[in-house]
Amino acid sequence: MDSLVNRRTIRKYAQKEISEDLLDEILTAGCRSSNTGNMQVYSIIVTRDQEMKNALAPLHFNQRMATEAPVMLTFCADFNRFNKWCSYRDAEPGHDNFLSFVTAAIDAVIAAQTVCVAAESKGLGICYLGTVTYMAHKIIDILKLPGGVVPVATITMGWPDENPVQPDRLPLEAIVHREVYHDYTRSDIDRFYREKEKRSDSLKFIEENKRTTLAQVFTDVRYKKTDNVYFSGTLLQVLKDQGFMNQ
Amino acid sequence: MDSLVNRRTIRKYAQKEISEDLLDEILTAGCRSSNTGNMQVYSIIVTRDQEMKNALAPLHFNQRMATEAPVMLTFCADFNRFNKWCSYRDAEPGHDNFLSFVTAAIDAVIAAQTVCVAAESKGLGICYLGTVTYMAHKIIDILKLPGGVVPVATITMGWPDENPVQPDRLPLEAIVHREVYHDYTRSDIDRFYREKEKRSDSLKFIEENKRTTLAQVFTDVRYKKTDNVYFSGTLLQVLKDQGFMNQ
Repeated sequence: MDSLVNRRTIRKYAQKEISEDLLDEILTAGCRSSNTGNMQVYSIIVTRDQEMKNALAPLHFNQRMATEAPVMLTFCADFNRFNKWCSYRDAEPGHDNFLSFVTAAIDAVIAAQTVCVAAESKGLGICYLGTVTYMAHKIIDILKLPGGVVPVATITMGWPDENPVQPDRLPLEAIVHREVYHDYTRSDIDRFYREKEKRSDSLKFIEENKRTTLAQVFTDVRYKKTDNVYFSGTLLQVLKDQGFMNQ
Repeated sequence: MDSLVNRRTIRKYAQKEISEDLLDEILTAGCRSSNTGNMQVYSIIVTRDQEMKNALAPLHFNQRMATEAPVMLTFCADFNRFNKWCSYRDAEPGHDNFLSFVTAAIDAVIAAQTVCVAAESKGLGICYLGTVTYMAHKIIDILKLPGGVVPVATITMGWPDENPVQPDRLPLEAIVHREVYHDYTRSDIDRFYREKEKRSDSLKFIEENKRTTLAQVFTDVRYKKTDNVYFSGTLLQVLKDQGFMNQ
């Protein structure tokens, strides 16, 4: 519990390997987590080779973690293995549809997060690279993912070489609703975001990006509508190409 | 690490409440997990009221956990709160698209799984109800979820009143690929599924369902193509209705 509460995302890693035994122990723990019907419809691609990291780095917008972490893990929604099993066992699978993608993606993310918790309990640091869903079409080529397989979460992992300040979180009452959803009034929003907005790192962020509010840094700089729309199109095309849109 | 490796899904709960303090501690740990850009684009609906459980139970196909667990938690992809914040801060959000749904859904599942790990570390048991994505359209009504909010993971939580045998998992080498995806040959499939197929619970499962292979139990009984196709349609309609398909 302490390691869950005190955790920080780690983006700078010491030049020290993660042993095969330790990584296997962590991945085994990840595969013990809940999954749909015990079908385990996910796969994990382990990247250790420097040339593979260099090939993947631009697809992760050249974030330094992509090349500097000893291990990168890409968690994929995967119905390919399950479908092959069915085809060799006189069974006709029906997983070439959107629900099946969502099912497998959820299983993959559950496994990814359990791997993160297991790694952090061993003193390792992790960072999720959200770029994986933006650039799924190209990551599929590099990792040679067949039909039925879509990458949904990438994490970098290594021994921490930094000890960053823990970032803020919204108060619990901003996230949690009792029995039914209680929609937010303006005064709720003001109250819940007050702490975040007055932090010195937030004020610095606004100034550096030449904006007048913190929200504008998100909408105008970090997560622009034009990018979201563009990558929505590429991701939907990936689902079609990988065989998940035949409903 | 031990609790990750030795865990079992718990479907039978003692008649004993989970205190508000303990639940808050667990949810706080969940909210410490990684999320995209620290936007925290998810919400958690807590169900404790018996009438609410009774209303939700049919949508979870009347699985006993839905009415018998002291707490049910529904994790939702939620851009509503973030968008409201933007609108009060002179910022124009652009999250009415598929990429934004996937981003928020991943964040919600990461939080859900961290909550599960935190709960299990306290001796509680959990069970995911995969039915949430099938019946999202009706769960939205009962939980009064506004536009921009989609339920993606439901878990039941309580003090264990059973100690089930730990189920099988595929061998790690069936799940993990080194550097690139190595597609499965027939002999790989035979080897990886051998252990699962010869278990007595699997053989019983085949017999009970009057099938000749274990795979057929999945394709003909548990996860039928007609159901997958039908619920793909309802889920895609939910994404449209909740405002995530405007790319």
